Amino acid sequence: MSAAERFIHEAMEVIIDEAVKKATDVQEKVCEWQSPEKLRELLDLELKDGGESDSKILQHCKNAIRYSVKTSHPRFFNQLFAGLEPYSMVASFITEAVKTSLYTYEVAPVFTLMEDAVLKKMMELIGWDEGGDGIFNPGGSMSNMYAVNLARYRFCPDIKEVGLYNAPRLVMFTSQEGHYSISKAAALLGLGTKNVYASILPPADMLLSLSILVQGAVPFFVNATAGTTVFGAFDPVDEIADICERHSLWLHVDACWGGAALVSNQHKHLLKGIHRADSVAWNPHKMLMACLQCSAFLIKDKTSLLQRCHSAKASYLFQQDKFYDVSYDTGDKSVQCSRKPDAFKFWLMWKALGSSELERRVDRALAMARYLAQTFKKREGFHLLMEVAPVIKERMMKTGSMMIGYQTHGDKPNFFRMVVINPQVSKQDLDFVLDEIHSLGKDLR
Amino acid sequence: MSAAERFIHEAMEVIIDEAVKKATDVQEKVCEWQSPEKLRELLDLELKDGGESDSKILQHCKNAIRYSVKTSHPRFFNQLFAGLEPYSMVASFITEAVKTSLYTYEVAPVFTLMEDAVLKKMMELIGWDEGGDGIFNPGGSMSNMYAVNLARYRFCPDIKEVGLYNAPRLVMFTSQEGHYSISKAAALLGLGTKNVYASILPPADMLLSLSILVQGAVPFFVNATAGTTVFGAFDPVDEIADICERHSLWLHVDACWGGAALVSNQHKHLLKGIHRADSVAWNPHKMLMACLQCSAFLIKDKTSLLQRCHSAKASYLFQQDKFYDVSYDTGDKSVQCSRKPDAFKFWLMWKALGSSELERRVDRALAMARYLAQTFKKREGFHLLMEVAPVIKERMMKTGSMMIGYQTHGDKPNFFRMVVINPQVSKQDLDFVLDEIHSLGKDLR
Ligand SMILES: Cc1ncc(COP(=O)(O)O)c(C=O)c1O
Ligand SMILES: Cc1ncc(COP(=O)(O)O)c(C=O)c1O
Repeated sequence: MSAAERFIHEAMEVIIDEAVKKATDVQEKVCEWQSPEKLRELLDLELKDGGESDSKILQHCKNAIRYSVKTSHPRFFNQLFAGLEPYSMVASFITEAVKTSLYTYEVAPVFTLMEDAVLKKMMELIGWDEGGDGIFNPGGSMSNMYAVNLARYRFCPDIKEVGLYNAPRLVMFTSQEGHYSISKAAALLGLGTKNVYASILPPADMLLSLSILVQGAVPFFVNATAGTTVFGAFDPVDEIADICERHSLWLHVDACWGGAALVSNQHKHLLKGIHRADSVAWNPHKMLMACLQCSAFLIKDKTSLLQRCHSAKASYLFQQDKFYDVSYDTGDKSVQCSRKPDAFKFWLMWKALGSSELERRVDRALAMARYLAQTFKKREGFHLLMEVAPVIKERMMKTGSMMIGYQTHGDKPNFFRMVVINPQVSKQDLDFVLDEIHSLGKDLR
Repeated sequence: MSAAERFIHEAMEVIIDEAVKKATDVQEKVCEWQSPEKLRELLDLELKDGGESDSKILQHCKNAIRYSVKTSHPRFFNQLFAGLEPYSMVASFITEAVKTSLYTYEVAPVFTLMEDAVLKKMMELIGWDEGGDGIFNPGGSMSNMYAVNLARYRFCPDIKEVGLYNAPRLVMFTSQEGHYSISKAAALLGLGTKNVYASILPPADMLLSLSILVQGAVPFFVNATAGTTVFGAFDPVDEIADICERHSLWLHVDACWGGAALVSNQHKHLLKGIHRADSVAWNPHKMLMACLQCSAFLIKDKTSLLQRCHSAKASYLFQQDKFYDVSYDTGDKSVQCSRKPDAFKFWLMWKALGSSELERRVDRALAMARYLAQTFKKREGFHLLMEVAPVIKERMMKTGSMMIGYQTHGDKPNFFRMVVINPQVSKQDLDFVLDEIHSLGKDLR
């Protein structure tokens, strides 16, 4: 066995022991909080002229895991992802080891086909019976950005070449509780954040806004949200689609978080009308637990809009005189050049679990969330949280007992946002959360 | 041992045997070519209602590796990345297993600090004695896009809010051989691909172009390339910097490929003047062999331009009443929301190898490239390649003996672009390349 192989073997033992077994063990801490200054010392970050021995490097690996937050721990509720999905993790290891990039079929034959298979299946769930097109992106924010760019391209393809200088002021609508990436997209795309109207999206209001805007401004894009970031709320897609059709607006559904409900017969009604969307962003890395990142962007168009909108036709990658069907080369659909084969992380777990188990998991997570809501109502004192959330959060992190995000909202004071995804989470864990918040905060009242 | 653990263990054996050992074995094929139709069958892509057994899933893993291109193979010269870097691979496994995202210090303490350490060290090599700022991105294309956006923001911060509607026509310059991502950035950012002037970048020409453009157009950005994609050529950064200073243009250096020369005392003169750049894109995943993706974007500004340009101040992530110094939260510097801790892939290998070994590797790769150029000159027949490249490529892929990209250029006919990075590559391998091209093509003359 070569030294490299031995090192890889040893490192794998460390990863399995520390990042898999310990990290998911409810008896262990969720995080081992250190201040930046202290952690800097503990990690020995300096990069030097000489190298270090394998045993030292293994120690660095252990430290990296030890001081990282255990997002797979049953008591991690801090982000819109959680839990360890072993099949997806293995798939992500394979994509790392195989080390390839999705420019062309030639250099990524397997992952090109897998991406295609996963996208097709997702489109089926959306209800696009005729198919469509799509691409996996490094994050739902990128997917949302793609949506805006495609909408603009459909509205006026010349902008790609000549820019926005002679264009009318283009305006976008997004749900009041929509994700901030829509605003980031407006900034990046030169459309301007002020031209994004965040409003409640029942159609009546929107019509109103449309009429307010007639002074030279042209609406072209509506972002509805299926599963908002903070409240998990669903916009009424069907009603919004009516408006969009009437006004020829591009309808994008940001289902990054809530798309998961499409796998559940019991819950898919939440996204009723999504098949009418022009595009959908859906992150299997959120509630479906695929490893980070795994974000699909899907569009209903079948006239290669995605490619026409983004292509640059680089001759060193996308030769047209190849010996195979170059429509398999997906690279020019992307604004990226190298692009990771993220779809595989979802494909392998889907293959292993089947759609039925995906459904079971989503149903379970939603049932757990309901349990929490009910239990919560019965507990006294919780409406009193108020301004104590930051203090409780600090204590929580320093104890390492659990992790939950907090925030304010409108004129609501700070509150904790509980995200329930991980199938490892039990009723006990949820009871624990309430007990722990209570005990961390009891002297604060 | 739980079933999940057992599966992970077994999968790891498969990965090490197939994606590490076999993939780097010169006796094995570089690729096992299958047409899309055939491969689709072999992979059994369909996602079904029921799941599959672990042993079937392992077989899928084996197939995924088997039919993927072996980019770590000593005879893979097809992309601007190559070779297996075991430390970096282990680091990438850890980032997958730890499964976190770089929004905030709180949720990614270790990787936040490591990103910071790596960026600082890279800035040192660039020669920014006073430091600067930076961020790792999913690819150099994104980094180049960031550069354009920052340049625009510095030029006129209002565009972020109000869009480009009242702005003058902004124009950009890029090297004639510059990467296509600059053009993709112009399209996405609403600046328009026609406003990108690709020209040879010695200053005289540029001045000329500047004067041609006075009719209402405003140059704001110059992209110089350090290591072009096809020829590996270096623009004269110092001379370009003079012009940029005189005309207050943002100077970006796309050193995605050639940045590696900065670690070599013998070769860093190629980037002379790079310390004068406003921003630099540098991909350690190319010649420095970090795993995909590992792309740094660095800027000299120290007034938080990066954050001001991209921030959306989402309250659910970037609370300002946290119990630690929130300047450690890097998420709002990004156009992404979730973002992978790619810097760790470079940090761990740098720690293990030391700067001195990085230098030795770069020097070796460049020496090998020189060897190839010299040997090549002595061989007859090679200038005759002409239009036979696509045919030779097809035969090469179907034999699986090696992989090299080909393309045309200007009025040059198709030629093979040899990319030499992998330290495993020997003179024998390079001799083999010439012999093999000769024998694959000998009936074609
Ligand atoms: C509704 C919604 N859309 C988009 C995103 C962005 O996803 P990503 O982090 O993959 O960019 C999020 C992230 O939480 C989200 O909640
Ligand atoms: C000079 C140059 N810049 C940028 C890029 C884009 O890098 P990435 O593939 O990481 O987006 C490349 C890719 O080959 C390149 O050669």
